[in-house]
Amino acid sequence: MNYYPDPDCSDLAGKLATLLNVRPNEIVFGNGSDEILSFIFTGLCGRGAAFPKVTYSFYKILAEFHGVNYITLPLRDFRIRPEDYVNLRGRTVFIANPNAPTGLALGLAELEGVITANPESLIVIDEAYIDFGGVSAVGLVHEYENVMVVRTFSKSRSLAGARLGWCVAGEMVARDLRTIKNAVAPYNVNAMTQGAALGALEDEEYTRRNIGEICRTREGVKGELREMGFEVLDSETNFLFARHESVSGGKIHEELKSEGIIIRHFSSLPEWNRITIGTPEQMNRFLGAVKNLVNRQA
Amino acid sequence: MNYYPDPDCSDLAGKLATLLNVRPNEIVFGNGSDEILSFIFTGLCGRGAAFPKVTYSFYKILAEFHGVNYITLPLRDFRIRPEDYVNLRGRTVFIANPNAPTGLALGLAELEGVITANPESLIVIDEAYIDFGGVSAVGLVHEYENVMVVRTFSKSRSLAGARLGWCVAGEMVARDLRTIKNAVAPYNVNAMTQGAALGALEDEEYTRRNIGEICRTREGVKGELREMGFEVLDSETNFLFARHESVSGGKIHEELKSEGIIIRHFSSLPEWNRITIGTPEQMNRFLGAVKNLVNRQA
Repeated sequence: MNYYPDPDCSDLAGKLATLLNVRPNEIVFGNGSDEILSFIFTGLCGRGAAFPKVTYSFYKILAEFHGVNYITLPLRDFRIRPEDYVNLRGRTVFIANPNAPTGLALGLAELEGVITANPESLIVIDEAYIDFGGVSAVGLVHEYENVMVVRTFSKSRSLAGARLGWCVAGEMVARDLRTIKNAVAPYNVNAMTQGAALGALEDEEYTRRNIGEICRTREGVKGELREMGFEVLDSETNFLFARHESVSGGKIHEELKSEGIIIRHFSSLPEWNRITIGTPEQMNRFLGAVKNLVNRQA
Repeated sequence: MNYYPDPDCSDLAGKLATLLNVRPNEIVFGNGSDEILSFIFTGLCGRGAAFPKVTYSFYKILAEFHGVNYITLPLRDFRIRPEDYVNLRGRTVFIANPNAPTGLALGLAELEGVITANPESLIVIDEAYIDFGGVSAVGLVHEYENVMVVRTFSKSRSLAGARLGWCVAGEMVARDLRTIKNAVAPYNVNAMTQGAALGALEDEEYTRRNIGEICRTREGVKGELREMGFEVLDSETNFLFARHESVSGGKIHEELKSEGIIIRHFSSLPEWNRITIGTPEQMNRFLGAVKNLVNRQA
């Protein structure tokens, strides 16, 4: 610990490259995927940015902080519509896939539509939740020079406390991103996190089993919520997005909070709440509280 | 590890505040002090920056990367001259104290001269090496609103691999810096690093003993180098800055490198080298190699 960490995370890059079937120099690591996103907004948005109106809220914060001109494109029926992503004039496009807080994913063909329609844009596909549902676009980085896929160890790898994100892109884009990283944050990933992540990658079976449990719990909770009168979007993530037919989203959020159960409420979508999937025990407590709440209102 | 880390490093802030006799909300933590510096260049250099011509090379890189207009002020006899730091028109001033790679420190009265001469400037005092010699300016943050002191766990705390830096400033400046941090990197310090640093702070005696050993080794190496015909600046850091009367700095650097001994050479100061103090065994090997090299040239 008295030496500076490996700035290139070489062991980790080698291991991950083998798992992904890419080259180590096509991967760049960040202090969480948030840092990767920050690097992109700092140095790879020279012609502006474009992202969905409803998506990961950090894109807007980073764009404003780094003075990047940006446009937002509305969802339709809560879905990102690839046909809306045209005439972007070289703007860097951010697509969370699956998207948050909706939980809905685009397929590879739809993503390719966005990529080929915008040859002058860098298309950043943020796959924070991909292991819980959708199909990864990592394979596309060898087909298209203008694609970057961003991932995190905070969700399916259960290492939010360790802070590790990474991205994979063709050699040219990866080199540009690495230039930014080496300029402003050469030692961005500490030695303990590099070690913890290497360990996590050595037990793929554990990760797969864990993801399976979370998805099973999610589907069970979804069914029960629907029986209680909730509209619940199909989710390809580790959370559900739901609204009740008669009880407001704000009320549900507040009442649960008073019982020590925290779900996510967005003032921009006041009928809805985002519910992260925890352990079966946690979700049973949540479901019991919601059932009481809904019955009291009826 | 499956939860996000405490964004405020509350336990660490409490412990450190007690040690420093400041309030926890006057401390902000970074993923290394490099990140603190990057935050300052991003958001607290609206009227430009000023720093010595010879100093920590990262200031210039950050200024250029973040598009901050900057001026550099030459050293005189390798020393920062407080009387040169006038008419800076609100530029944020960066003073590494002790300075690198010279190893020389300013006293508190000299720093106060810079602070009071520039009431419209934020004065950033980078104390990466302060534990090896100079007098800390932490106490000044309660006397002057325009002072920020930056520190690191990478040197005297032997935790370069963990990446932890911090700064202390009056409440107003600390709040501004925290606003920047929370906007772009809310979870910047991972949970393991917070734990490791807490542990380090609980054994002050270990740190003091370690610093004492390094300083003793440094003084011994300094004496031996001088006997071999080196000019060696007095150092208040964990490194020495030295040049030989007849062998060029570049040659010494290259020859040692071929023997697997790495010291730091700066093309801007080609006669000189910076030698980091290691263990007594490492330094004996270094001194033996240097002695051979100097004798061969004689």
